[in-house]
Amino acid sequence: MKITKPDNAAESPAKTIDRRHFLRASAATAVAAGALAACDRGDARAAVAAAIPNDTAGHTATGQTATATAPVSKADEMDRMHEAGIKSFPAKTQGKGCMPLEPRLDKGVKVYELTASEMRWEVAPGQSVPAMAYNAQVPGPEIRVKEGDRVRVVLTNKLSESTCIHFHGLELPNDQDGVPYITQPPVKPGETYTYEFTVPNAGSHMYHSHHNAARQVGLGLLGAFIVEPKAPRAIEKVDRDFTMILNDGQHGYTLNGKGFPATDPLVAKMGEKVRIRFMNEGMMIHPMHLHGMHMTVIDKDGWAQPAPWKCDTLNIAPGERWDVIVNCNNPGTWAFHCHILAHAESDHGMFGMVTALVVQK
Amino acid sequence: MKITKPDNAAESPAKTIDRRHFLRASAATAVAAGALAACDRGDARAAVAAAIPNDTAGHTATGQTATATAPVSKADEMDRMHEAGIKSFPAKTQGKGCMPLEPRLDKGVKVYELTASEMRWEVAPGQSVPAMAYNAQVPGPEIRVKEGDRVRVVLTNKLSESTCIHFHGLELPNDQDGVPYITQPPVKPGETYTYEFTVPNAGSHMYHSHHNAARQVGLGLLGAFIVEPKAPRAIEKVDRDFTMILNDGQHGYTLNGKGFPATDPLVAKMGEKVRIRFMNEGMMIHPMHLHGMHMTVIDKDGWAQPAPWKCDTLNIAPGERWDVIVNCNNPGTWAFHCHILAHAESDHGMFGMVTALVVQK
Amino acid sequence: MKITKPDNAAESPAKTIDRRHFLRASAATAVAAGALAACDRGDARAAVAAAIPNDTAGHTATGQTATATAPVSKADEMDRMHEAGIKSFPAKTQGKGCMPLEPRLDKGVKVYELTASEMRWEVAPGQSVPAMAYNAQVPGPEIRVKEGDRVRVVLTNKLSESTCIHFHGLELPNDQDGVPYITQPPVKPGETYTYEFTVPNAGSHMYHSHHNAARQVGLGLLGAFIVEPKAPRAIEKVDRDFTMILNDGQHGYTLNGKGFPATDPLVAKMGEKVRIRFMNEGMMIHPMHLHGMHMTVIDKDGWAQPAPWKCDTLNIAPGERWDVIVNCNNPGTWAFHCHILAHAESDHGMFGMVTALVVQK
Repeated sequence: MKITKPDNAAESPAKTIDRRHFLRASAATAVAAGALAACDRGDARAAVAAAIPNDTAGHTATGQTATATAPVSKADEMDRMHEAGIKSFPAKTQGKGCMPLEPRLDKGVKVYELTASEMRWEVAPGQSVPAMAYNAQVPGPEIRVKEGDRVRVVLTNKLSESTCIHFHGLELPNDQDGVPYITQPPVKPGETYTYEFTVPNAGSHMYHSHHNAARQVGLGLLGAFIVEPKAPRAIEKVDRDFTMILNDGQHGYTLNGKGFPATDPLVAKMGEKVRIRFMNEGMMIHPMHLHGMHMTVIDKDGWAQPAPWKCDTLNIAPGERWDVIVNCNNPGTWAFHCHILAHAESDHGMFGMVTALVVQK
Repeated sequence: MKITKPDNAAESPAKTIDRRHFLRASAATAVAAGALAACDRGDARAAVAAAIPNDTAGHTATGQTATATAPVSKADEMDRMHEAGIKSFPAKTQGKGCMPLEPRLDKGVKVYELTASEMRWEVAPGQSVPAMAYNAQVPGPEIRVKEGDRVRVVLTNKLSESTCIHFHGLELPNDQDGVPYITQPPVKPGETYTYEFTVPNAGSHMYHSHHNAARQVGLGLLGAFIVEPKAPRAIEKVDRDFTMILNDGQHGYTLNGKGFPATDPLVAKMGEKVRIRFMNEGMMIHPMHLHGMHMTVIDKDGWAQPAPWKCDTLNIAPGERWDVIVNCNNPGTWAFHCHILAHAESDHGMFGMVTALVVQK
Repeated sequence: MKITKPDNAAESPAKTIDRRHFLRASAATAVAAGALAACDRGDARAAVAAAIPNDTAGHTATGQTATATAPVSKADEMDRMHEAGIKSFPAKTQGKGCMPLEPRLDKGVKVYELTASEMRWEVAPGQSVPAMAYNAQVPGPEIRVKEGDRVRVVLTNKLSESTCIHFHGLELPNDQDGVPYITQPPVKPGETYTYEFTVPNAGSHMYHSHHNAARQVGLGLLGAFIVEPKAPRAIEKVDRDFTMILNDGQHGYTLNGKGFPATDPLVAKMGEKVRIRFMNEGMMIHPMHLHGMHMTVIDKDGWAQPAPWKCDTLNIAPGERWDVIVNCNNPGTWAFHCHILAHAESDHGMFGMVTALVVQK
């Protein structure tokens, strides 16, 4: 990899000034990035920083003095915004969704308490939006059980409208299916409602509101409901297990409730085998594209595909879950994003459905 | 399943009044539902009513007197609209599409007569929209033949514009393919045009206009063309065989030409094996989600998938046909809808691409 | 195939006049078509013309004299526009994308030079639009190499903004992945940047900008990067190999950079086996529908499907590549188009994502 200038590359004075101005902006960005770095997010930021080579901004960092009057060229201004976004990744925001929810045990029954309430949610740095959340998380906490477990889910409705929970993908008795006026009354504001069932089928499932759902799910009333099988297949014995919930409602384009640069990177070590559980809770398709390595598709909606198959771009439609395996055999920080480019990038830089798979040497 | 009130659940006077008002509204709804029920739609309404437990609206039905002045709370008003929609399902409307079309036999040739005309179509109760229809049906009548049959389709154009028929999925001789100026002249207003061919390949196919088709198909010029195989596979020997044509054009979001609550439920008995033939004649994807049971995907565009695979949400793109098997082993009324939630529900309740699979004990 | 008039088909005087007027218009069209035909496009136009039967416009061609005052009926006017579009197919336009790029050899390394610049692009006859192009082609030239080749790609940026190249689908070392600020600095206006790598995995891949990409790819900075395998499977030994790149950005709905009628037909001989490599560089799905014959899907994103499967409508999502085989066993000119009908036809006739597969006897 090398950079050359064209033979006739004598810079015009205007361009030289632009560069100076850019550097001032760039320096300011560096300070901001440092401030954000102080807010620790575990190893994620360090992992990303360590995995991005130092020379990615190299040839523009030639240390000149800025002047106050020179305008920034459009190209440099655009690049500055792109750089600032990436350098701030993963950016700290208030609130984190998809946190594991530990059950309370009641005579062998795993009891999960979910409280739906209205709140604000910081979807990206400085972007606070109205939300509906289970246990103040968007997405709601991750429920993870085993095939055959007895489970009780206690829903308390602190919203100003009725709600309910549908366990999307679980083959439950009809009266536990969570569809108001078909299988139960709606759960009114202030009420508590209890679901209880024996978990029937393994796989990557979801729970979400099924009442005024186009609005309630878009605002955040959703979560992962993962059922581990009694007898795992060899292909699903992995070193790391990630859930990636896609949404595109009132909060914009999000992965696990956050838009880039506030998305979480997926961090693994060289040689590890990783599982990613894609779940689409939005209203649009999102073809997720992984750079640098392929994905092996093993499950659809919690059901084993008859023969696993490979791809680098997997189209995930609303309501679908797809499970893939990635053998992390290519070190580096790999862009991982929706390939509907307008869901991932604008001339202001990357945003929305963008994260990275970081493979550490 | 049980409902509890929070400890501090003393109702405010305002809320009590809201309840009263709701009940008056609810009672009015019940009367309307009764009136609709009087318009028999075969067993469908009874099947749905019998399969929905009585207590789905239970805890609000506490019989109080309404007063004229109290406003309904937003939550109750929303719930009332949701309930009214579901209680009226399946709602009676004028016209029914996809009715089997019996051929006339002419020396061993099965002759189907299709007349295209302009009319109005009741897509949901009280919603009458301009339509183009074959034989006054939206979708047009279902043509069902056997592999190897000799078939003649006689199209009479009573529209104010030209049209034609393309047999989507059939591998016909080129001059029967139905594309104006490529394989035939357009069929002008007032003219009759005859297609004749030996049916080459089995499967779930379609017929539709291929002239000004973005408009004509959106208005209703489409239908199912199903070819039964000479030698059915074991997996396709079923107890019931349903066709579900999706459309999203000028009539809104429809299943077999109707929007919820005017859609037809799919009714089966416990233990039965059901085939559903999805066909998308619209311009958008529709990931159809079945509650309570999974679907086994057997065919794509009339061709056997090399290995059947399972899912609960099947993404159907425009022009595609997907055939699935459902083993009806879970009794109850199961919501069955497009999981692009804006195609299925608003704060006024369910609409559009919603129906139910009713599994009777 | 035969056309009959209804028994009461005495034409009204108004209709007779309409016909006359139509014919005048039709004659004008014929002259225009002749003029276009003079601009040779290899065998393509001749192939299409030879394959379309003469009688497709037959029953309207009854040779009457037009009068100046009679209005054209809406139906005839619409048909005239449809006919004109098809008769002009394949229409000549300035510029052709996807042309094979021959490498320069440098000590065993295949060197490809790509220059990104701004230009205008004639997407359909008379429709000239702003574009960004590699080597003045939209899509950029096709790069075709073998698994294991050593390849150098030299990018010169003559745009007014920064850019870069991502090799979509290739499993490259991280520093060749082409994502500004993650794996490299952006390539500024006026600069040249060199990528070099050993080609790791076979299949139908793509190269495109990964900087301000929602805009740059929409404007044309994309191309096919095809890697032939060292050991081809029997199923991929074909007589003809076509690439079909879908896009839906600022240039409208295009196949290989052109909208109908300026799209290239795919021409094959009866009995030949054809491969089509679909690549979606747009932001929407495009379910491509082939008339008359089915497609056998063999590869996804360059990876073999575990078992090939058949369809006539293949849904291609952004970023995806799907490879199919067509056994050309049905002679004629077969419409081949996106089945989102609004991407293919309006009341003014076919446009956008429409072409034909011509099977010559």
